[in-house]
Amino acid sequence: MGQGDYRILHEAALRDYLAGLPELRALLGGEPAAWAITEVGDGNLNLVFIVKGTRGGIAVKQALPYVRLVGESWPLPLSRAHYEYLALSRQAQLAPGLVPALLHHNETLALTVMELLEPHIIMRKGLVAATPYPRFADDITTFMARTLFFTSDLALTAAEKKEAIAAFAGNHALCKITEDLIFTDPYRIAEQNRWTAPYLDALAAALRDDMELHVAISRLKLKFMASPEALIHGDLHTGSIMVTESQTRVIDPEFAFYGPMGFDVGAVLANLLMAYFASAGHERSPGERHAFEGWVLETVEQVWAGFAGKFLDLWRAGASGDAYPVSLFAGEKGAARLEAERQAYMQRLFTDTVGFAAAKTIRRIFGLAHNIDFELIEEPKKRAVSEARAVRLARGMMVEAVAFRTIADVTGAARKLRDWQPELSG
Amino acid sequence: MGQGDYRILHEAALRDYLAGLPELRALLGGEPAAWAITEVGDGNLNLVFIVKGTRGGIAVKQALPYVRLVGESWPLPLSRAHYEYLALSRQAQLAPGLVPALLHHNETLALTVMELLEPHIIMRKGLVAATPYPRFADDITTFMARTLFFTSDLALTAAEKKEAIAAFAGNHALCKITEDLIFTDPYRIAEQNRWTAPYLDALAAALRDDMELHVAISRLKLKFMASPEALIHGDLHTGSIMVTESQTRVIDPEFAFYGPMGFDVGAVLANLLMAYFASAGHERSPGERHAFEGWVLETVEQVWAGFAGKFLDLWRAGASGDAYPVSLFAGEKGAARLEAERQAYMQRLFTDTVGFAAAKTIRRIFGLAHNIDFELIEEPKKRAVSEARAVRLARGMMVEAVAFRTIADVTGAARKLRDWQPELSG
Repeated sequence: MGQGDYRILHEAALRDYLAGLPELRALLGGEPAAWAITEVGDGNLNLVFIVKGTRGGIAVKQALPYVRLVGESWPLPLSRAHYEYLALSRQAQLAPGLVPALLHHNETLALTVMELLEPHIIMRKGLVAATPYPRFADDITTFMARTLFFTSDLALTAAEKKEAIAAFAGNHALCKITEDLIFTDPYRIAEQNRWTAPYLDALAAALRDDMELHVAISRLKLKFMASPEALIHGDLHTGSIMVTESQTRVIDPEFAFYGPMGFDVGAVLANLLMAYFASAGHERSPGERHAFEGWVLETVEQVWAGFAGKFLDLWRAGASGDAYPVSLFAGEKGAARLEAERQAYMQRLFTDTVGFAAAKTIRRIFGLAHNIDFELIEEPKKRAVSEARAVRLARGMMVEAVAFRTIADVTGAARKLRDWQPELSG
Repeated sequence: MGQGDYRILHEAALRDYLAGLPELRALLGGEPAAWAITEVGDGNLNLVFIVKGTRGGIAVKQALPYVRLVGESWPLPLSRAHYEYLALSRQAQLAPGLVPALLHHNETLALTVMELLEPHIIMRKGLVAATPYPRFADDITTFMARTLFFTSDLALTAAEKKEAIAAFAGNHALCKITEDLIFTDPYRIAEQNRWTAPYLDALAAALRDDMELHVAISRLKLKFMASPEALIHGDLHTGSIMVTESQTRVIDPEFAFYGPMGFDVGAVLANLLMAYFASAGHERSPGERHAFEGWVLETVEQVWAGFAGKFLDLWRAGASGDAYPVSLFAGEKGAARLEAERQAYMQRLFTDTVGFAAAKTIRRIFGLAHNIDFELIEEPKKRAVSEARAVRLARGMMVEAVAFRTIADVTGAARKLRDWQPELSG
C-alpha cells in the first residue's frame, strides 16, 4: 500500500473502518451506528477521536499531512504516525502501565487506536486548576529512567544502538519543528513568534540581542541534533501527560527519536516550573495557591532526584550495554571508581537538563506554541509578570547551567523569583 | 543479486572478470593473458591485487567474509566494501585528488577497483626509513578539514545529517572491532593482547589496574559510539596513507561511519608521535635521525594548526548547516561572539583529539594490532624503551587531556620524553 491509499477518516468513514475490525468492534460493543464518535483533538498536529460503544471506548489518532494548527500550507509527513507507533510500542515494553495500551495501527492511514484514558485529564489542565498529583513524580521518573536507560549505550550493544538510531532517523521533519521553534526562532525575528505585548516587548528585544544566550541555545541545538543518547519522547510536556490522582500516562510520542536524555527530563521540569510561575497569575486572593505551589517545587525536586536515583539503580543492577564495560572496573577499587563515574555522568546529565529546561521555557513565552498555564491568565499584565519571572530563571539556567549544581539550586532560584517585580514595557 | 553470488576472485578468476569490463580492459591495455597480477594485501582484512597491462595499472580490493589476519574463525560482513565505497565516493567529492580515483565497484563481489598509486608507498614505511614528507601536513589537513566539516552539522541540514548517519549505521561490525581492540581489550586481560615481554609486563599490569585510565578510556569509548559528529575515516593511521614526496593519498576507509572528528585527527597525531618515539630505536648512531625527528614534531604541530585553521576558514566562509545559524549572530557583536565560540568549539575538539590520540597509541603497544614503527626495532629491549616513552605520554594525554591546552604542550611533552629511561621488567 502506498501513501496514495491514505485518506482522512472523518466520522462516518471512521465508523465504517472500525466496524470492519472485529476485535475493536467487540471491545466497543453494540451496533456501530450507535457508537458515539467525538473529535477531541486539541493538539497542534492531528485528528483525535473518542469512540464509545455500549461496552467500552477507544481513542483514535490520525495524522494529517499538514500541521493542523497552521493548515495545508505547512505540510508534515504522515510517517510520523509510524514513528509514534514504534516509540509507543517500545515505551510499552519498557514502562508498562505508563503509556496507553496499543489496540490497532494502520501505517497507510497513519492511524493508531489506543486504550481510552478515562477519567484521566491532560495534566496541564489540572495544574492550572491547582490540583496536586501525588503519584506523578514516582510515575514519570519510572517512565523516564526506564525508557532512557534501556535505550542507551549503557543497556544496548553498539550495534543495537546504531540500528535503533537508524530506525528513527526518518523522523527528521518532526525534529526540525523542534530545531526551529525551540532552538532558533524565539531568539530572532520570526513571523510566527508572539508574546504578551506590549509588556514583554523590551524583554523579547533583549533576548534577540543577548549573544551569550544565543551561544548557549546554539550549543543546546547542536546537542539536540547530534547526541543520540537514547530514545527520547521528544515532547514530554504536561500536555503530553494524562493523569488522575492515582495514575499517570504518557501520550503522543510522535517527536520520538534518538536524542539527548536531558531534553525529556528538562521538558518535565520546565513545565512544572512554568506551572509554578503561572500560579501567581491564577490566584484570586493572595496566597490562595500557596500549598499547590509548594507541591510543585517539591515535585520538581522529586522528579530529578527520583529520575537520577532510578537511572543509577538500573545501571548498578547490571549494564549489558557496550559503554563502561564492567570488565574494566573489577574489584573493590574498580567498583568504587565506577560509582564515582556514575555520579559524574549524572552531573553532566543534570547540566544538560537544566539547559534544556530553560530552552523549553523561553519558547513557550516568545515562540509559536504557548501553553495554557500562562495563556489562561486573563489579565495580560499579570500574565507578563509571571512570564517575565520564568524567563529570568530560564536565562540564568541556560547561560550558567553549570552554576546550578543541584536541583535545590533550581527550586531555590524559582522561590526567590516568586514575588519579584519585573520592569515591563508599555 | 544476493550475497550467495559472492565468490573470492583469485588470480585467474580476477583476470576473467576484468577482461569482461571494457573500460578497465582499455585502461590496462594489451591481452588479458599478458596482464601481470600480484596479490599485495598486507593489511589485516582484505585481498588486494595490483594488475598491470601494457598501458596502465589498477588496484583491486576485495573483502573477505572473515578477518584475514585471524582467519575464518572471525567472520566479518562483506557489507564493509559497500561502506568503503560510499565513503570513498564522498571523500573524492570533498577532497579531490587526496584519495585514489574510483574505477569500478561490484557490491555483490564486495570488490572495488581503484587507480594504481605509483610510485607511492605506505607512509609508515617511509617514516621507519626516516623520510620526511614535505607535502603531508598540508594535504592531510585539507583532507580532514574538508571531509569532516562538510559532513558535520555545520554544513548539513539536520535532515541530511540524520539520513547520512543512517546510511552508515550498518557498518557496526567494523565499529565493534575498534570498540573492542582500541577502547576495551588493552585495559583488561584479553587473549589477543600482546606486548614486548617481559620488558613491558609491569607496565601492562599497571594499565590494567589504573582506574583513572579506565574511566578515561570508557568516556572516549562512549564518545566514539554515540557522537556522530561527521563522516570519519575511522582508521586514519599512517598505514592508511600513501605518499610520495609530492603527493598524499588516503586509502582504506572501510571503518567509515559517523563518529567523533577527534578520532581521525587523533589517529594522525598518534601515529606521528609513535614514529617519533620509535625513531630512537631505529638509529644506528646517536643523533642520526635528529633532523627527521624534528620534522616529525614540527609536522605534529602543523597537522593540528593546519587542520584547525582550514576547518575554521570553511566555517567562516559560510556554514549552510543547521548548527549555529548565522541569523542568531547578526551584526558586529554577533560576529565577534560567534568567532569566540568557534575557538571554543575547536578547543573542545582539541581535547577530544588529545584523548583519542592517546587511545590509538596504547592499543598499538598492548593490543592485537601493532605497527612496524615499533615492530621493526629488532632489539626487544630497545623497542620496549621506545614503547614505554610513548605510553607515558599517552597516559597523561588520556587522563589529563584538558591539561594539554595547545599542540605545543603535546610536542613539548614528547620532546621531554625523548631520552627518558623507563624502568623495565624482566
